[in-house]
Amino acid sequence: MPIITLLTDYGLRDSYVAEVKGAILRITPEATIVDISHDVGNYDVEEGAFHIARSVPYFPEGTVHIGVVDPGVGGGRKPIIIQSRGAFFVGPDNGLLAPGAERLGVERIYEISNRRLLPQRVSEVFDGRDVFGPSGALLAKGVDPLEIGSEVSGYVRLSIYGPKVAGRQVEARVIHIDGFGNLVTNVTYEVLDEIGAEDGCTFAVNVHGEEFRVPYVRHFSAVAEGALLMLVAGGGYLELSVNMGDAHERLGVERGEKINLTLL
Amino acid sequence: MPIITLLTDYGLRDSYVAEVKGAILRITPEATIVDISHDVGNYDVEEGAFHIARSVPYFPEGTVHIGVVDPGVGGGRKPIIIQSRGAFFVGPDNGLLAPGAERLGVERIYEISNRRLLPQRVSEVFDGRDVFGPSGALLAKGVDPLEIGSEVSGYVRLSIYGPKVAGRQVEARVIHIDGFGNLVTNVTYEVLDEIGAEDGCTFAVNVHGEEFRVPYVRHFSAVAEGALLMLVAGGGYLELSVNMGDAHERLGVERGEKINLTLL
Amino acid sequence: MPIITLLTDYGLRDSYVAEVKGAILRITPEATIVDISHDVGNYDVEEGAFHIARSVPYFPEGTVHIGVVDPGVGGGRKPIIIQSRGAFFVGPDNGLLAPGAERLGVERIYEISNRRLLPQRVSEVFDGRDVFGPSGALLAKGVDPLEIGSEVSGYVRLSIYGPKVAGRQVEARVIHIDGFGNLVTNVTYEVLDEIGAEDGCTFAVNVHGEEFRVPYVRHFSAVAEGALLMLVAGGGYLELSVNMGDAHERLGVERGEKINLTLL
Repeated sequence: MPIITLLTDYGLRDSYVAEVKGAILRITPEATIVDISHDVGNYDVEEGAFHIARSVPYFPEGTVHIGVVDPGVGGGRKPIIIQSRGAFFVGPDNGLLAPGAERLGVERIYEISNRRLLPQRVSEVFDGRDVFGPSGALLAKGVDPLEIGSEVSGYVRLSIYGPKVAGRQVEARVIHIDGFGNLVTNVTYEVLDEIGAEDGCTFAVNVHGEEFRVPYVRHFSAVAEGALLMLVAGGGYLELSVNMGDAHERLGVERGEKINLTLL
Repeated sequence: MPIITLLTDYGLRDSYVAEVKGAILRITPEATIVDISHDVGNYDVEEGAFHIARSVPYFPEGTVHIGVVDPGVGGGRKPIIIQSRGAFFVGPDNGLLAPGAERLGVERIYEISNRRLLPQRVSEVFDGRDVFGPSGALLAKGVDPLEIGSEVSGYVRLSIYGPKVAGRQVEARVIHIDGFGNLVTNVTYEVLDEIGAEDGCTFAVNVHGEEFRVPYVRHFSAVAEGALLMLVAGGGYLELSVNMGDAHERLGVERGEKINLTLL
Repeated sequence: MPIITLLTDYGLRDSYVAEVKGAILRITPEATIVDISHDVGNYDVEEGAFHIARSVPYFPEGTVHIGVVDPGVGGGRKPIIIQSRGAFFVGPDNGLLAPGAERLGVERIYEISNRRLLPQRVSEVFDGRDVFGPSGALLAKGVDPLEIGSEVSGYVRLSIYGPKVAGRQVEARVIHIDGFGNLVTNVTYEVLDEIGAEDGCTFAVNVHGEEFRVPYVRHFSAVAEGALLMLVAGGGYLELSVNMGDAHERLGVERGEKINLTLL
């Protein structure tokens, strides 16, 4: 029962996503395919990377994650496979796969370079269907990645992931702004443990040069209405939020910007 | 081949639905998961309940229906399992599951109270992924509900379901207004049989104190263009409609309001 | 592992698509169901036909394609099965299925006329759930089409498919306009081979009486920004496009209109 996830920016109105699934099922008809999202903003690699990174810990061992947000299709960017602890990631080498793969732990990287097992290429601009889908299907079927690609030593990373930690200080970045205006940062539980943050502690939060004292809590309702707070919500990342309010609007911080945290 | 359905108000842009599916597939990788809808209005329990109730008769015996429209998450509402004739319903005890479970016939109710078989809770606000999905997956796998919960005697019902019948009179309510403005009521075929309604008969329909004579027919075209009619459409519920028109606009009746019917 | 695809104009907010899937799984619980699209414009048979025709070549041998864009439901249009090379098509006889079936090669046509194996009809207006879904599920299970229907000699075709070829001239039609304004025509690779078109050749393109010289190329970037080009994109159909621009806006050609091509 191989499980394959799919994330694209194709939308659901056209038949593009279905064509990728058809190409997968031609190779691995027994696969269960789960959509992560197809409504990622056009060419928005960072948004796609966030959805993948957020969701991968919840899938079974052996899942193959295919991601296609690919502004560089037809150009020089490499098609890659990242083998991580318990999962494969397949897609363009543009940073899309990196945060998810790193969350599980990267083991090996391959460039897809051998088309022998892939279907004949119909188009030069639809790698989701003609390269990534079939490659993922082969991996799900148990084919060795060396049958499809050759090992390489690195891959493109997204600079906004991976906070800089020094003692009790963290240089964090906003990796996502959700529909409620919560500022999701790149700070995981592991980082919070590393600096010794505990439920109820307070951070000095520096945003655009202004400093706020913000408690690290477990529920929105732990602070007064309209007050700032930090918590780790369902996605496993530290968020800067306003109880019953909109932190994005309040602080004017955009995705990719820095937030400096000091544990008091 | 366990079949699990999923209805939420999460939308499809974020990875939330995928995380629930991942959590299900970790427990029951062979499950077939069918989306009922994820575009239910935010926190709109009544809309979600309608979609579930409408669709459950068409699924195979043994299907597990997971519903998550859950304004009370993190508060005191109970997580429950309703065992019905040929199906399980899993979700918050807020009325969402009741109409569907009652349509099939309620047999037993359980409160989910034993986390031993469930994954470690990551978040206190994502019960879809951390409680309901895994509980449904366990049931689909054949686990006894008593391994996850303990039997309780009642559950929250939606007051707008279950019309009051007295002789040839029915106090009905509008449970849904569809995209064409048809007023879908809580009156099923069973109720129509009970009062002796037959194709071609006429109802006195009282709406906001005004009375209309409305034929009960099988096709919209059985009445003149612009005329009121009642019929049982694809969902199995009696609808008050206007041929080639919009009953919602014409009568100004909103979801939840009463409509009194007397069979003439 | 039977594979069934589904295309409708039902949208994803209501439970209609789920009800069709439930009806399929009651008959063939082991089926894998793939959504082609449910966001086809209401009653837009031509748009639905295009999505089906574009995607069918990518599905495995033996796939059953169910399409329901059905303005004539409840009226006189026939429910049909088209058996094509390696696939079945099931839906209303209104042209929706024809281009996809013809792309694979039509072998036999059946009118669905025997309800013995189908579920009891609940509604007269929901053939997707009550007729087409179950019929497709039976075919996917291996039931002979003669158990559900009787052979007939023809089916409704879409007039905008099938270009007229004479020597080096093609009377093409626009079958789809995509989100970038590319004008997708009914001209396939096979037609291009027939007239001897080769990468780098030039067409005289006559649109609304005006003539343009347009190169037939493999990449958008083969022409200057803002210049017209023709290429076969991922769907396998010849497109008339503008590099970095919008051909629909530039030429004012709508779906269904003729474009005359002469290979120079």
